[in-house]
Amino acid sequence: DTEVLSLSTPNVYFVEGKLQAEVARLANDAYAELAAKHRGRFLGFASIPMDDPDAALLELRRAIDELHMQGVVVLSNIRGRALADPVYRPFFEEADRRKVCVFVHPMIPAAAEAFTEYVLGPIVGFPFDTTLAIAKLCFAGVFKQLPNIRWLVGHAGGAIPYLMERMDSGWRDFAECRVNIDEPPSFYLKKLYYDTVTFSPHNLRMLRDIVGADHMAMGSDYPHLLGSIEKAVSSIEGMDFSAAEKGRIQSGTALSIMNNVPQTARR
Amino acid sequence: DTEVLSLSTPNVYFVEGKLQAEVARLANDAYAELAAKHRGRFLGFASIPMDDPDAALLELRRAIDELHMQGVVVLSNIRGRALADPVYRPFFEEADRRKVCVFVHPMIPAAAEAFTEYVLGPIVGFPFDTTLAIAKLCFAGVFKQLPNIRWLVGHAGGAIPYLMERMDSGWRDFAECRVNIDEPPSFYLKKLYYDTVTFSPHNLRMLRDIVGADHMAMGSDYPHLLGSIEKAVSSIEGMDFSAAEKGRIQSGTALSIMNNVPQTARR
Repeated sequence: DTEVLSLSTPNVYFVEGKLQAEVARLANDAYAELAAKHRGRFLGFASIPMDDPDAALLELRRAIDELHMQGVVVLSNIRGRALADPVYRPFFEEADRRKVCVFVHPMIPAAAEAFTEYVLGPIVGFPFDTTLAIAKLCFAGVFKQLPNIRWLVGHAGGAIPYLMERMDSGWRDFAECRVNIDEPPSFYLKKLYYDTVTFSPHNLRMLRDIVGADHMAMGSDYPHLLGSIEKAVSSIEGMDFSAAEKGRIQSGTALSIMNNVPQTARR
Repeated sequence: DTEVLSLSTPNVYFVEGKLQAEVARLANDAYAELAAKHRGRFLGFASIPMDDPDAALLELRRAIDELHMQGVVVLSNIRGRALADPVYRPFFEEADRRKVCVFVHPMIPAAAEAFTEYVLGPIVGFPFDTTLAIAKLCFAGVFKQLPNIRWLVGHAGGAIPYLMERMDSGWRDFAECRVNIDEPPSFYLKKLYYDTVTFSPHNLRMLRDIVGADHMAMGSDYPHLLGSIEKAVSSIEGMDFSAAEKGRIQSGTALSIMNNVPQTARR
């Protein structure tokens, strides 16, 4: 079986602007080398120096065209700045033109003081920050304006599925929520793709009922402590979904949205 | 039919410490007067001057013993301080001794800068803050140590139901999460009560599947823009739950957890 690797939190954002480009090149070269060495076993999402706009575009092209990687990974905030910030728009416009698979992995929220106890940063801060990032991208109109990006949202969407109806209510009730989008948020949110890094059968069922198996892709969060390859597999096998649905979740969806999928990854 | 009223955000916390007591007395007297004037139509949760510990205890006793109110309302943070903060422990200990129904209504998170656009404060900040408040109370051991409080959590738990499995994983994986509780978080979270202020059938189903109809109480969030008495009723009527389950959600659960329930409120 094939695993898609990506550089987790804090990705390349532990250094500032210009330095991110060098770290990203090093990381992406290493991922490409690993994939070449273990052909059919590993694939990878590229890291992007988001705070150096020119380098971000160059690395995107290099990762997709030269390293033949399967998409990119970005965090839910970039050193505290929202993905919906206009400074990142040129990058996402290029990603849209190239139909890139963009994996959004959580980061600790920019305002982290409330999450210092009980490991609450990863436990609830991560899903909050994913939710906030996706909500802003949605209300800012990025999903509407750039419909060709294949957004893959980590941790089963954070809390997006549970809050989708509330976001729709906000769109109906508040003019500010309708400035950039002319359909309710759920219209756009159902077009995104969600990994299955929740090992709860209740969450998996809700996700299937709301977005469908063809918008779900198996994720493990391995090697994080909260992650598990074994549970990633068993949680899906344990559901009373059809074999076709399980097939989409286990590989079909991922194969349909990633870039440069090699023949070795298809069964 | 009978409605239970409570003073919403910012409750009495728009003033500091000592002043909260006077505002709370005024509000609670007005609620009690309204309930007396329209007997059988209105009931009420009392507001509490949480930042004046002595006055908080006095007002709790006055509200329950003299005004015969149905419990108390607190916000998910008190001027930025967590409900799990030790300064509030004497109040909750007294509430535990008296088996008080404590309704937790959301507040804008203490760190609010990230929620300024697109009305994101109420739309996602509210459920985040409810989730954070409940997670801290849980990991701090308050639910374990004070098991007689009937906690009623607003907005269908914020995002607690969707994040419950992740909280359990955190408890298993991190020693810090096990310092104050010896069962996984879901053990305590399933003992709480949740209002149904989500009008999504997916959320209502998840809540029923996880905590059961006898831990769900119909809520409207009226008169907030995002609230609706009509949807509160129709969303539950539209579910394929049994008549017994719907009866519990519509009134049975509330009648079983509130204080001083008058005969007029029972059918």
